[in-house]
Amino acid sequence: MSTVHRLTLADVLAEHARARPLVTAVVDGDVRLTYPALDARVTRLAGALAAEGVGEGDRVLWLGQNSHRVLELLLAAARIGAVLCPANWRQAPDELAFVLSDLTPKVVVWERSEAVEAVRPEGARWLLSGDEYERFLAGGAALETDFGDDAAPVLALYTAAFDGRPNAALLGHAALVAHAASLLHVRQMEPGFTFLTSGPLFHVGTMMFCLATLLAGGTNVFTPAFDAEEVCRLVDAEKCTQAFLFGPMIDAVAAANAGGKYDLKSLEFVSHSQEWDDMITVSDTPWCRSKMGGYGQTEVGGMLTFLGLAPGAAGFAGRPSPLVQVRLLDASGVEVPPGEVGEICARGKSIFSGYFNRPELNEWKFRGGWHHTGDLGRREPDGTLTFIGPSLRMIKSGNENVYPAEVERALKSHPAVADAAVIGVPDERWTQAVKAIVVLRPGSQADAAELTGHVRGLLASYKKPRHVEFADAIPKKGFIPDYDALDAHHGGGAYPGG
Amino acid sequence: MSTVHRLTLADVLAEHARARPLVTAVVDGDVRLTYPALDARVTRLAGALAAEGVGEGDRVLWLGQNSHRVLELLLAAARIGAVLCPANWRQAPDELAFVLSDLTPKVVVWERSEAVEAVRPEGARWLLSGDEYERFLAGGAALETDFGDDAAPVLALYTAAFDGRPNAALLGHAALVAHAASLLHVRQMEPGFTFLTSGPLFHVGTMMFCLATLLAGGTNVFTPAFDAEEVCRLVDAEKCTQAFLFGPMIDAVAAANAGGKYDLKSLEFVSHSQEWDDMITVSDTPWCRSKMGGYGQTEVGGMLTFLGLAPGAAGFAGRPSPLVQVRLLDASGVEVPPGEVGEICARGKSIFSGYFNRPELNEWKFRGGWHHTGDLGRREPDGTLTFIGPSLRMIKSGNENVYPAEVERALKSHPAVADAAVIGVPDERWTQAVKAIVVLRPGSQADAAELTGHVRGLLASYKKPRHVEFADAIPKKGFIPDYDALDAHHGGGAYPGG
Repeated sequence: MSTVHRLTLADVLAEHARARPLVTAVVDGDVRLTYPALDARVTRLAGALAAEGVGEGDRVLWLGQNSHRVLELLLAAARIGAVLCPANWRQAPDELAFVLSDLTPKVVVWERSEAVEAVRPEGARWLLSGDEYERFLAGGAALETDFGDDAAPVLALYTAAFDGRPNAALLGHAALVAHAASLLHVRQMEPGFTFLTSGPLFHVGTMMFCLATLLAGGTNVFTPAFDAEEVCRLVDAEKCTQAFLFGPMIDAVAAANAGGKYDLKSLEFVSHSQEWDDMITVSDTPWCRSKMGGYGQTEVGGMLTFLGLAPGAAGFAGRPSPLVQVRLLDASGVEVPPGEVGEICARGKSIFSGYFNRPELNEWKFRGGWHHTGDLGRREPDGTLTFIGPSLRMIKSGNENVYPAEVERALKSHPAVADAAVIGVPDERWTQAVKAIVVLRPGSQADAAELTGHVRGLLASYKKPRHVEFADAIPKKGFIPDYDALDAHHGGGAYPGG
Repeated sequence: MSTVHRLTLADVLAEHARARPLVTAVVDGDVRLTYPALDARVTRLAGALAAEGVGEGDRVLWLGQNSHRVLELLLAAARIGAVLCPANWRQAPDELAFVLSDLTPKVVVWERSEAVEAVRPEGARWLLSGDEYERFLAGGAALETDFGDDAAPVLALYTAAFDGRPNAALLGHAALVAHAASLLHVRQMEPGFTFLTSGPLFHVGTMMFCLATLLAGGTNVFTPAFDAEEVCRLVDAEKCTQAFLFGPMIDAVAAANAGGKYDLKSLEFVSHSQEWDDMITVSDTPWCRSKMGGYGQTEVGGMLTFLGLAPGAAGFAGRPSPLVQVRLLDASGVEVPPGEVGEICARGKSIFSGYFNRPELNEWKFRGGWHHTGDLGRREPDGTLTFIGPSLRMIKSGNENVYPAEVERALKSHPAVADAAVIGVPDERWTQAVKAIVVLRPGSQADAAELTGHVRGLLASYKKPRHVEFADAIPKKGFIPDYDALDAHHGGGAYPGG
């Protein structure tokens, strides 16, 4: 990268400190910092971290609730080429212990909690987020170092386990800036944009808007965790434009403000319910226009596709951000034609830089120069994308690949089906045969032939279940069927690749 | 650059061919091409160029009016790592001859003109833009080559002479994509955006919107050159969202449609006059909101700062694009404080890659890791920027630097002054003294003392003119005072550096 093209996250802050000397960058309880004040603190914090031996590629871990200090630590890490990981502080002790041993941070900033205290190891500098952090920062010499490689990673977010353990997705300066720029476009973020971090900053959904607000030179309002009444109070007091809210959180906020105590009209948000729509300003930006649809994951910086970029789209995932490419590839890396299901693969400006300390997994995920998301999609005739589901496993029937998620989606579109999961069972002739485990809706009826015929009407014949079993419930791991348990109970096996 | 982060202009087209199979990419007379059709033509054209020996870093020159073929050639060049230069075909023969000898293109696509015919040299493949071009393209084998270095230059635009000859500014894929992304944001370009290229594509002002429309997956409508009636017809027929129009062009279009023959309501444009505003839809996007203010030049990809990003700004140039940084530096590279004039310097995603074949000039322009624009600016107390004028020359008075543009600006703010230019004259004690040549408004009066006092009220004392001469007119080169002529007539000399 040529020096003249660099733009690190610290550069973004340094620019705002000049161009927005009077704008409030962060609000957090009693703390209010303008951009120059934030820049001055970050410069000192970077100096303190450097004095602690934190350098290029080193990790700093945050274990606590939301705080403006998460943003400060990220920007200070940016200044010295280090990486900040804000991790879920409410994980079980063995999960926390795994993160600590996996990430090997040089500095951990934490809020006191029993779970963290139980696993606190040697070998890192631990700082409590309150006075201890402030003393550490105040003791830093303002750093004039100018880390300039904006392709380097700066943020690590732990995400789903592919191989039985979570992995820290590394996101680079340039990728985070590019993703933020796509949000500025789709969300039409303008000067004065004020974001309330009412979701956890260790999730990309909240972090991506925090960073877009930074790029826009807007104001980030931090709240430790979601609290409906506090959201109302902060939106009213700080005139927030947006908050991290969805579904049940919106209902809770609407209920908390049922008496109209707070003025929420500054919130330009998606339409949700009559009472909600009456309280806020319904936004007509592409982001909010329809249903905030799209497809994303931590590894693409947040969102890869936006429904708002494809009005009237056939595919609910819409179209890609202008800064990325998407291909649907089969197992051998060949693009599948429109109408067929393939793995959603991506490349472009906002893609992550691989997982921390997982060279083999990274090589596999980036094979052929494309990031393989592990999710399945289909391109519709209008070019838009449909997200099918995770490609957790593949069934091999004859020479054909069958993805459980696609068949499950077809089964669940039958009115009598409440839930469904699909496994492969050994078959002498075809290697495997497709087997469906189906939960019917109370009071509904449908036999195997009807369900098989329904799937046949939607998908290629080889994808239809050859066997159907009915059950009372599908065992789950989170939102995903527990396929190992299903295999054990329903005779699954003979999967390709073992 | 990691492969997974690449996004060339050809990648942008390849993506749209998949995501927007039904969208019209270009309209040009009878030619209408969807994105897949454009991609297919570009793929063949790239094959034909490669077969002609055009490879990485090689130049292709366009000498003609606007045409969809300019975009095709740019995207085909993108596909093989080459560079397209659309040059001003109406230049004088010796200017054209300079471009040809400077750029040394391997292929020239041209529209028949006497000026071009007069200078047509050997050593390149010349193709007439009509049938000959079409045969060339049709003969190309669809190229599957995948040039992937998006930091490489792909567009060359000749721009102002710093050293007596024009220089071809090289813009890279990533820079053009980043600049286009900033326009998507500031102009709130949405799906369906339709741009009419009513200005010349060899100027960055038209090209930057053509490329932003491409990035947005919108429709580019090409018209050979500005014609007010034809603009009306095309806006009506193609429902254009935007066209390249300003000042007198807008007046001409409004006059051409005075009878209301054409429906121009699809045009979402800046407010200009009552009759214009009644014909079109006045846009409230940041781009159009105030007066389309900002600061830019070819070397930054188009716009560096936007007034629309700084509502109520003190400085008319507004604030930088989110993807760049701006510093105001003095002659020794030190940042000047707010309120003082310095050279506008920039770095970030949309900055150019230097001039073609000018290694020494590039080293000078990029000294210290910043692109030195050659223009002067000032930061106002609210952090916004004011563009002062070109730093064409500097006067040295004692140890102080005086920029003519700044003093001229102060002089012209006096109500009696119609025009003014400032030169340095030799001075025994101070090396140089500031001399103003002033044109008074008809019927106005002001003597040297009054004008000097006026400047003294606005600027530091050493900047005030020591000598004032009155004249009937200021000789100009384009919009800029002809300082050489002024020096010759008014005793200028002893400039620093000779």
